[in-house]
Formats: sequence, C-alpha cells, structure tokens
Amino acid sequence: MHKTRVRVVRDALDANETIAKANRDDFDRHGVTVVNLMGSPGAGKTTLLEAALAPDLGRRAGVLEGDVHGNLDADRLASLHVPVTQLNTDAGFGGECHLDANMVRSALPQLPLDELDLLVIENVGNLVCPAEFRVGEHHRVMVSSIAEGDDKPLKYPLMFRACELVAITKIDLIPYVRFDLERYHYHLRAVHPDVRTIELSATTGEGVAAWRTWLAEIGVGEPAGV
Amino acid sequence: MHKTRVRVVRDALDANETIAKANRDDFDRHGVTVVNLMGSPGAGKTTLLEAALAPDLGRRAGVLEGDVHGNLDADRLASLHVPVTQLNTDAGFGGECHLDANMVRSALPQLPLDELDLLVIENVGNLVCPAEFRVGEHHRVMVSSIAEGDDKPLKYPLMFRACELVAITKIDLIPYVRFDLERYHYHLRAVHPDVRTIELSATTGEGVAAWRTWLAEIGVGEPAGV
Repeated sequence: MHKTRVRVVRDALDANETIAKANRDDFDRHGVTVVNLMGSPGAGKTTLLEAALAPDLGRRAGVLEGDVHGNLDADRLASLHVPVTQLNTDAGFGGECHLDANMVRSALPQLPLDELDLLVIENVGNLVCPAEFRVGEHHRVMVSSIAEGDDKPLKYPLMFRACELVAITKIDLIPYVRFDLERYHYHLRAVHPDVRTIELSATTGEGVAAWRTWLAEIGVGEPAGV
Repeated sequence: MHKTRVRVVRDALDANETIAKANRDDFDRHGVTVVNLMGSPGAGKTTLLEAALAPDLGRRAGVLEGDVHGNLDADRLASLHVPVTQLNTDAGFGGECHLDANMVRSALPQLPLDELDLLVIENVGNLVCPAEFRVGEHHRVMVSSIAEGDDKPLKYPLMFRACELVAITKIDLIPYVRFDLERYHYHLRAVHPDVRTIELSATTGEGVAAWRTWLAEIGVGEPAGV
C-alpha cells in the first residue's frame, strides 16, 4: 500500500514537471517573466500585489489568482486595472491546497500573454505543498509575515528553500508581538544561506520601493539579485 | 487520468475513515477525549496549549504534536510537564501537509492513553487539507489569528465548517491591523451559522479562562457548547 502511494505521488510529480516545462516554453515564447508568489493564508500576498502593480511599475503586469474558493482577492486587484484571471482549485480540481502545472495550463487560454511582460501567479495560502509543484515560473517568492513567528523557517524548511526571495511582511507589528528579527534571519540562513530578503510593511510603506524595484527588474533568465 | 485521480483520492479518504474509526474506538476504550487542533502556520496553536495545559486544568492532558519537520513545538510544551509525543510527516510520510488517521495510528503506541483524560492533537499548520482527514478525534477546534485578515472564513470555508469551535487569537493586535471583527463574524456565520467562538489574546490573557473552561469540560459525546 505504501509503495503504491509513493509511486502514485512520484508519477504525479513527474507529470507535473513535464507540464510545467510546457507552460514555461509558452511564457518564454511570449516574453513573459513569471513569478510564483507563495505563503501562508493571510501572510499578505495580495496586499504586496496591491502595493506594487501600479501602472508606473514600467511593465505590463498581470495576475493569475489561485484560491481554493471564491474571488475575493481577484476583486481586490481589479481596481488596479491590470488583467486578473481567477483560478479556483475547488472547481474541477477537488479543493487542492496548491496550484499545479496542469491547473495553470488550464488557465492559459484566459491569460492575455501577448499583452504582458510580467505575470504574477498568486498561489493558494499554504506553507507546504506549493513548494513541491512548479507551475512553469521563472522566479519563486515567499511571503512570510512576522505575525506567524520567528520559528517558521525551521518548521517549513522546504518552502523557505524553494524560493529565491523572502518578503518579510507586517514588520510594523514587531513592537506588539513576540518576534525576534535577528533570530528569524538566523533560522532562515540555516535552511537557505543565500536567500535574498526584503523587509516590508504595507502600512508604513517601508520596503515597498525595494519590492517594486525587484519586480520591475527581474527577467526570464537567472534568478534576479541572488 | 482525471477519473483515476478522483478514484485514488476517494479510496484514500475511505481508508482514512476506517482507520479514524479504529483510533476513536481505542480512545473511547481508554476514556480519553480527543481534540484535533487546526489552523494556519503561526495562528497560535502551540501558544493556546501553553496557556491552557497547566496542572490545575483538572484533567490529565497529553499532546500529540504534528509537524512537517522538527520538534520545536514539542520542546516548547515539554516545560508544561504533560506527556508530549512528536509526529513528523516528513519521516516516512512524504512531508504531508496534514495529519491523517494512519499517521496518528502509528503514534498510538507512544501515547500513554491509560494515564490521560484529554489528548490534544496539534495538526500541521494548514487551512485546507487537515479539514478533509479525520484522525479519530471527538472535537475539532480551529485557531484563527486576526493577523490573517477578516476574509479568511470565505476563502477557506471547508475548514471553518469542519470545526465546532473557532478560537480567534491575537485580538490584542486589532488596533494595529486592518481587521474588522464584526465583518469576520459576519463571514464566519455565512459559512458556519452555529459555530461557537472564543476571542483570545495570550498576551493580555483575555479569553484564556473561557478556553481553559472549554477544554476542562468537553466530553467524548456530543460537541460541547454547540
């Protein structure tokens, strides 16, 4: 039984890699840089997009919004006047806790790739499974709120290793919570020594310029800034 | 392909139900009330246990600590002098994002059921899959931090429907974040009209007495207080 399960999981991951490669070829053909944005529920993924995707970013940006259910985040982003496509994992995908390459592939016909330079795929809020499924992205960003605690890199090491940039959000809350920023960085370096970080607060605006610059400058090639 | 996948998922859920029933029979035979504690990474699940499981709770309590990796939370709880058993999903279970009945069954031999009246199973931090896998528990509690935002019941409805009690944590942060408590309750009632709630802050102590009373009084029968 256990062996069968391992085989099923491996087959699924192999198939995912194949489809992710096909997605990436499509993105490359259209010259679209793709970012996979991951993090816990409520880490601030959508808020980071609201803070960055203004017309003066200098790139034609779009969003593929992944959620188990509903379109609250897509509605929030609609006011930014960038193309937003909703992808729900409870509609035909069994309520999956992550996006996979095939789900993203099913959404490609709805994406105006010819009109974009940058596509951000906001993954389902989850610190485990999204790290295991590439979707065809060029870059992986993890959003980690200080409200979640300074131990999270040690508890979810795969996710913190899978990304090239950690956006540390809600740093304006540090005075009010039990969170040691130095200890957080220490834990983060232990699981991913070279990872880039940006400390952010959408409330005070701290770090938002660095985040926007990162998004404005990343290309389809090597991970930017690492 | 899709049909096969649906069948595999259904078979797995059927097997899970069978094993969950066996676990529950074991818990009942030993007279142990079992609580499945679920919530996002960093919602405050371990902190809630630290706040409640003092010797004066009046019940012999133990903890089964579920994590993808590591034993940070078990170490935190060890100072409470209650029996704590660690269960890692990356050791033999492929790094699963949730506990299932079979994982819990594998830990039963390590649990001193004869010496317990109450067992709290702290699930992996995740708002999606834990709701789909019963582990043999009598009661399901969801821990939901206000730092995650007031839209969460609408975005993760299955989890909010699966529990009988929502512990709303970190309410001392309300002055510092964009969170409308009335809107949160409105959304929560929309997905689970009769769910019981306790508003808590481990920092100020607000609500901790109500949470301890709930834990002290729940039995193996009908969900308490609903």
